[in-house]
Amino acid sequence: MKSFIQVSPESHFPIQNLPYGVFKPDPDLQPRPAVAIGDYVLDLSVLADAGLFNGPLLSGSDCFNQPTLNKFMGMGRPAWKEARATIQKLLSEDEPTLRDNTNLRERSLVPMSKVEMLVPMTIGDYTDFFSSMHHAKNCGVIFRGPQNPINLNWYYLPIAYHGRASSVVISGTDIVRPRGQCPPSGDSLPSFGPSKKLDFELEMAAVVGPGNKLGTCIDINNATDHIFGLVLMNDWSARDIQGWEYVPLGPFLGKSFGTTISPWIVTLDALEPFACDAPKQDPPPLPYLAEKTSKNYDLQLEVQIKPSGQEPCVVTKSNFKHLYWTVTQQIAHHTINGCNLRPGDLFGTGTISGPEPESLGCLLELTWNGQKPLSLNGKSRTFLEDGDEVTFTGVCKVCHHHSLGPNENLRLAINLTVV
Amino acid sequence: MKSFIQVSPESHFPIQNLPYGVFKPDPDLQPRPAVAIGDYVLDLSVLADAGLFNGPLLSGSDCFNQPTLNKFMGMGRPAWKEARATIQKLLSEDEPTLRDNTNLRERSLVPMSKVEMLVPMTIGDYTDFFSSMHHAKNCGVIFRGPQNPINLNWYYLPIAYHGRASSVVISGTDIVRPRGQCPPSGDSLPSFGPSKKLDFELEMAAVVGPGNKLGTCIDINNATDHIFGLVLMNDWSARDIQGWEYVPLGPFLGKSFGTTISPWIVTLDALEPFACDAPKQDPPPLPYLAEKTSKNYDLQLEVQIKPSGQEPCVVTKSNFKHLYWTVTQQIAHHTINGCNLRPGDLFGTGTISGPEPESLGCLLELTWNGQKPLSLNGKSRTFLEDGDEVTFTGVCKVCHHHSLGPNENLRLAINLTVV
Ligand SMILES: [Ca+2]
Ligand SMILES: [Ca+2]
Ligand SMILES: [Mg+2]
Ligand SMILES: [Mg+2]
Ligand code: NI
Repeated sequence: MKSFIQVSPESHFPIQNLPYGVFKPDPDLQPRPAVAIGDYVLDLSVLADAGLFNGPLLSGSDCFNQPTLNKFMGMGRPAWKEARATIQKLLSEDEPTLRDNTNLRERSLVPMSKVEMLVPMTIGDYTDFFSSMHHAKNCGVIFRGPQNPINLNWYYLPIAYHGRASSVVISGTDIVRPRGQCPPSGDSLPSFGPSKKLDFELEMAAVVGPGNKLGTCIDINNATDHIFGLVLMNDWSARDIQGWEYVPLGPFLGKSFGTTISPWIVTLDALEPFACDAPKQDPPPLPYLAEKTSKNYDLQLEVQIKPSGQEPCVVTKSNFKHLYWTVTQQIAHHTINGCNLRPGDLFGTGTISGPEPESLGCLLELTWNGQKPLSLNGKSRTFLEDGDEVTFTGVCKVCHHHSLGPNENLRLAINLTVV
Repeated sequence: MKSFIQVSPESHFPIQNLPYGVFKPDPDLQPRPAVAIGDYVLDLSVLADAGLFNGPLLSGSDCFNQPTLNKFMGMGRPAWKEARATIQKLLSEDEPTLRDNTNLRERSLVPMSKVEMLVPMTIGDYTDFFSSMHHAKNCGVIFRGPQNPINLNWYYLPIAYHGRASSVVISGTDIVRPRGQCPPSGDSLPSFGPSKKLDFELEMAAVVGPGNKLGTCIDINNATDHIFGLVLMNDWSARDIQGWEYVPLGPFLGKSFGTTISPWIVTLDALEPFACDAPKQDPPPLPYLAEKTSKNYDLQLEVQIKPSGQEPCVVTKSNFKHLYWTVTQQIAHHTINGCNLRPGDLFGTGTISGPEPESLGCLLELTWNGQKPLSLNGKSRTFLEDGDEVTFTGVCKVCHHHSLGPNENLRLAINLTVV
């Protein structure tokens, strides 16, 4: 399938992708939903106003005349499939409706370079998991030594904690280096000041579609229907603050100063051609976590750091397929106690580290807590420095001519602000 | 000061209190803000429509024509003081405006017994602290033994974790006993089933007023201006689920199945006469946590359990003044890393245990993790059973004739639901 819109072979946004986002065409105008196509965003509110969503589930719905995607997310997979089919048809090279209507094209297709992208949904709750075994093992070895680096419970349940929803921001938002308490050394007091161990965490996150009522749970074999799509996520982490605060109630201020997501949500329908088997689990999961088919996606991930005024350097290459616990297992586990999910909830995967030293998902692991510095443009580097730009990229590839990127790059400037 | 409305001496809602809530007069009508007075709720949307909020900050505002209190919360203390003065004047025995207007009285004053109370705000984020030293110490002794029961970091910072906002419910909502994984014993697998160690946690929670921008922090000596008021809160906890899951990322499913708050938010202005000195802190807090005056409130707390078909039994009596870390310290700490708060955010105090064996704030402590059962109506009891109703009461007392209750009772039925 091809679009009448020119899409370069390197673009992350061919007609097969069509990820959803929310944008402002102009600072004075209301936010509205869109999909990405080539170098354009397609304004879905314009298509809706023109009556082009005329299928049984979407005709008459105001889901694309909203400032967020929550309503559309809550409508579920049949509505998502109808929308995708409608949009793909309207964009395809054989379909004249949009292609030959200059006025409609000019109103609905906005150059991506000219728009401001927003966090596309109201995030009621954000949960961060810990689902890569490589990451869990490395953290255990670094902090507790090589004997039993992974706690026994990790093998039986997808460990997670509640994260801070208010500080989830869109790609491009400056992150202020957090201040806080760091562990005392010896008999001294805890120290206080800007974090000296600022890190990225390479994650993706699932966005929840329809939720469930409090007191009910989501069966693992239906869990896919509750996932709207995936974003890239950088769970910025201050390792020194985190290290002092996290016993016994878990990470708090070491994480809550900011979490960045990509503006485009890639749907599971777009990712389906790239599905692959999830790792075999040993010990076998308890029945409520055992799924008929257990899937991951072969989605290549890369992190670049661009020090201020310098060239970007690739610091790691990983893959979504390395996750031990799947997103569907995360959903089944999260709700087994009756906890209610709502459309727009965010489920971070946890840092996605692969098995090789070049595939580790954060600087804590890549530099072994600062003991083995990296070389960035010939300079030694342990943690993030002021002015760094960290870029995540995720790509699914069938062959050289056909790439499906889940996202535009995630670019993030980090500035030290002394408050 | 007295109201023209008859308020019995035992009522929690004299004219000195005037806590805020949101109610539905009728299942078909929109939720609207109210204050409690005696046995009535006073519909603030009716007073606003009648133009009675005619001060400089509230005249022309639609803050009382909203389904939640978030907008009013975000307006800050000057607006809260103006509203309180206006409502107190309208309800006072000397003021004819409402007293002598039968039609207005009938439209604005609704018997409390006839209305449905709702969670009064959208909770963007819910944070639960761990601020009672007695509770921290008892948990440490129970789980780790009497040597160093409290971690060193506890003395330097108000430890907290992010809680689940979606499952915060209003008093009276049934709580379904959660299912989940419990620790394996010996070489067995983890067990799975309904929690056998369901507990209450006696807490109060602060509701945030104006927030702060991401990347900025709230100075401790201004933190009071960011607190709209306090509610009673029951942080239902499944001790067996929590015990297996919480290392290393903290409590998750052992808490997220439900958290109950009282429908009425008592303002700090109403609590001011009951302010008292907070405990002296040793070691002294770091500068960002050192406040010019460190206040608690002398607010008596009580928990009753009513087993199904039986009489209620008082199981503990505690007091808000036992908190080691103050709510203002919690706010200063929460934002020191730049984390942004939003109006309506909820800050649980953590279980409020006092120093005496009769003042412990949860069954885990009261029964020493089930080893020392309580007697309820002559029957031995360790944790909560199906059909129990747990009632929290909080009262500030100046003398016998003048009580200021922060809340109506919190009544909560617990039913076992097999899903
Ligand atoms: Ca993480
Ligand atoms: Ca608690
Ligand atoms: Mg973060
Ligand atoms: Mg709870
Ligand atoms: Ni190809």
